[in-house]
Amino acid sequence: MLKLDAASNMPLFQQIYCQIRADILSGARPEGTRLPSLRAMSKEMQLGKNTIESAYAQLALEGYIAAIPGSGYKVNPIYGLLHQIESNPTVAFSLSGNDHAQKVNQHYRYNFSYENSDGSTFPNTIWRKLTSQILTDDAPASGYSTEMHSYGDAAGYLPLRHQLASYLYRSRGVRCTAEQVVICSGLQPSIMSILRLLQGECNIIALEDPGYHGARAVYECFNTNTIAVPVNGDGLDLAVLVNSSARVAHIAPSHQFPTGVVMPISKRMEILSWAIENESFIIEDDYDSELRYSGRPIPSMQSIDTNGRVIYLGTFSKVLSPGLRMSYMVLPPLLYQRFCEIFSGFQCTVPWLEQAVLTRFMANGLWERHLRKICLQKKKKHDVFVNTVNQLWGERAIIHGHNAGLHILLEFTDGASEKELVSKAALSGIKVYPASNLWKDKALCPKNCLFMGYGMLSESDIVSALKVLKAAWC
Amino acid sequence: MLKLDAASNMPLFQQIYCQIRADILSGARPEGTRLPSLRAMSKEMQLGKNTIESAYAQLALEGYIAAIPGSGYKVNPIYGLLHQIESNPTVAFSLSGNDHAQKVNQHYRYNFSYENSDGSTFPNTIWRKLTSQILTDDAPASGYSTEMHSYGDAAGYLPLRHQLASYLYRSRGVRCTAEQVVICSGLQPSIMSILRLLQGECNIIALEDPGYHGARAVYECFNTNTIAVPVNGDGLDLAVLVNSSARVAHIAPSHQFPTGVVMPISKRMEILSWAIENESFIIEDDYDSELRYSGRPIPSMQSIDTNGRVIYLGTFSKVLSPGLRMSYMVLPPLLYQRFCEIFSGFQCTVPWLEQAVLTRFMANGLWERHLRKICLQKKKKHDVFVNTVNQLWGERAIIHGHNAGLHILLEFTDGASEKELVSKAALSGIKVYPASNLWKDKALCPKNCLFMGYGMLSESDIVSALKVLKAAWC
Repeated sequence: MLKLDAASNMPLFQQIYCQIRADILSGARPEGTRLPSLRAMSKEMQLGKNTIESAYAQLALEGYIAAIPGSGYKVNPIYGLLHQIESNPTVAFSLSGNDHAQKVNQHYRYNFSYENSDGSTFPNTIWRKLTSQILTDDAPASGYSTEMHSYGDAAGYLPLRHQLASYLYRSRGVRCTAEQVVICSGLQPSIMSILRLLQGECNIIALEDPGYHGARAVYECFNTNTIAVPVNGDGLDLAVLVNSSARVAHIAPSHQFPTGVVMPISKRMEILSWAIENESFIIEDDYDSELRYSGRPIPSMQSIDTNGRVIYLGTFSKVLSPGLRMSYMVLPPLLYQRFCEIFSGFQCTVPWLEQAVLTRFMANGLWERHLRKICLQKKKKHDVFVNTVNQLWGERAIIHGHNAGLHILLEFTDGASEKELVSKAALSGIKVYPASNLWKDKALCPKNCLFMGYGMLSESDIVSALKVLKAAWC
Repeated sequence: MLKLDAASNMPLFQQIYCQIRADILSGARPEGTRLPSLRAMSKEMQLGKNTIESAYAQLALEGYIAAIPGSGYKVNPIYGLLHQIESNPTVAFSLSGNDHAQKVNQHYRYNFSYENSDGSTFPNTIWRKLTSQILTDDAPASGYSTEMHSYGDAAGYLPLRHQLASYLYRSRGVRCTAEQVVICSGLQPSIMSILRLLQGECNIIALEDPGYHGARAVYECFNTNTIAVPVNGDGLDLAVLVNSSARVAHIAPSHQFPTGVVMPISKRMEILSWAIENESFIIEDDYDSELRYSGRPIPSMQSIDTNGRVIYLGTFSKVLSPGLRMSYMVLPPLLYQRFCEIFSGFQCTVPWLEQAVLTRFMANGLWERHLRKICLQKKKKHDVFVNTVNQLWGERAIIHGHNAGLHILLEFTDGASEKELVSKAALSGIKVYPASNLWKDKALCPKNCLFMGYGMLSESDIVSALKVLKAAWC
């Protein structure tokens, strides 16, 4: 006998469906049992036949009952099967107690984190206006609509790629067509695509040591063979690279991470020679080339590559926002053709709307204006950081990697170890990061360096935080 | 002698830099040559010393020249290296002639494509408003700013994951915490993540045959061993699955693609038993569950999985827009923990802003209102399609997979082959798609079926196009 609740929010046909289903699953209506006819049920429950029929139709659709022509509905064999799968339930409904994702976060007054941005330079108002414009233009009658609601080109929105190709040529000497530019959702997916493009051919990757941990994380996650090549005063150690079996070198020649070294033109040419002779590739990771505070941006290695050995990577994370998850790679012609073959059935993972907004931002001249503004703002922070460090520590701290980017490697010459520095800072509510995290070969890494990012802090916070550190470390 | 052009847009220091660099690269200023002193150059060029110094500093930074203490600047060994790398240039600057990306597109009057959407149901106005609101709220003083401009959780924006967990429970019976929901940039990246999560353990994947070609493309691209399991009248052939060595089954039990079959509860339970006994996993691809035109959405397999064997996949591509590139997966607890360990250094590839807009959209009740509206609109198209086909072809065409989704498998019983149908349609300016594309085992596929998507066409276009086809095929 079904019990219905007319006052419930659940529609009556659904209540009937639920109760009959529960009966079947509990064995109360065994396999082969006939359900009451629509007419009989309708009369008994005092409901319209349609209501009963909706419930029966859903049960039949899901396979709980089967319609027998001329004989109504019969219960299918379910009960026995259910017992098999429910006899050893192993899953608890709630993970709250075991939630790995909720890391315990000590509260810090100041955090010299490198990764994030403080957002004050993000062009909120313009971004909002351009987004509105495009969504207004994106009426079904306009051409935009088709583009926004289609899967699009695996390499991304072509007008954006045109803008980028043009900008990269002007600013970094990168020589490519718009088609060679591939829009990606950040460094990590770019590396995953490159690994697939080079699969079977270039299985051993040389990484700068120290180097960017985010890149190393991807290579290791996907079990790539990597070789850690030490970094000298002018970039990675060429002799080690040449004598290794690496077929790819992932380097940041314009602003080595984290040492800040700029690789001189002679070494760039030697690495290109190596690549040509070995049919190897160079991944040029140009992650913050726009942020150079002294002198002009360094021309890319790609600009002197006449043999298609360089894969050039750039990102909008540092100069716009990491939250956009937008980056790009410029593939040499051979790899671009391979990309078209291999990824032809794929879709670009960056949302069309975001690409369209950025295209307008670049086409309207707002992009380069934004770059100038952001460079000025970051330079001020940089100068405050460097000057304050010099005032507070003088010769007891050596600054590496300044005049560009948003990070510094700070080396202490007075015998302090990174461990002490980190823990004393923490006691005063300041989070600083040991430089050794960035070395793979821990034997080679210095023990007296800190890796300091200042992108998140305001100028006054930088000064305050450094003063607190000075007190904490004395 | 340097030649400067005062009228040029290029700053003077940069002109000096370029000319000296060119001289060095051409060998005109050989290795070891001293550059004129700042004072001498300044006097000769009639320019301020700063201008010269800027040029020299840039050249030194890039390694073209070296500063000799007390002796000015000297040219580094560059010329010889340049010759090595330029002796065999292999790359032409322009790809325009070889551009694979520009496929030749015959112009079709009507296209029964499945992939894209016509955009008329995308909630433009609301999306624009919510985006504006969030960017206005996203002032540096508010909490949002930190979130938008940080790299965020690898699994995505937690408030969105809360909304999804709640919605999925109400609509599909999916039982999970917010943490188990992972936001992804579409089916293909989801599959790539799953392959990494199951690496080494579940190397052979069973795919429905016929099945979704987009999923098969990813598995094949990454050289996964796949087994094509035929699809019967009630879903994939269990006997074939059980007798295979597959450890993962990728299935669409609520609306098999492309046949439309709904897998009955009994078979769902049998597949779950198989998964429990073999410690296998089931990827439940629920790509268009919201679009059901008759009866309610089918409860998910995940809702009856008490052993953590089901990975549930859903997407916003069909019900919002493919251009958003947003989807999600619900990981069983074991795999969620593994995800946290393996991908802890990674970032979610979906832009924060998009996730924040969608969160508000769902939180404000607009999502379920949108679903009802879109379901009605798609149902109208569906009904027009089905009724028109019945009118025009009667028993000569059998419709498979209707009452849900945005596609139909159309089977012709009068002896026509798909090849003929496709080419005759093309001659009349209509693009239709052979169903055999969706079968891996071509021996098993019917030769008389077309795979028709109608999401892109308006109701009147559907009628017109079908009438043209009727004429074309007679």
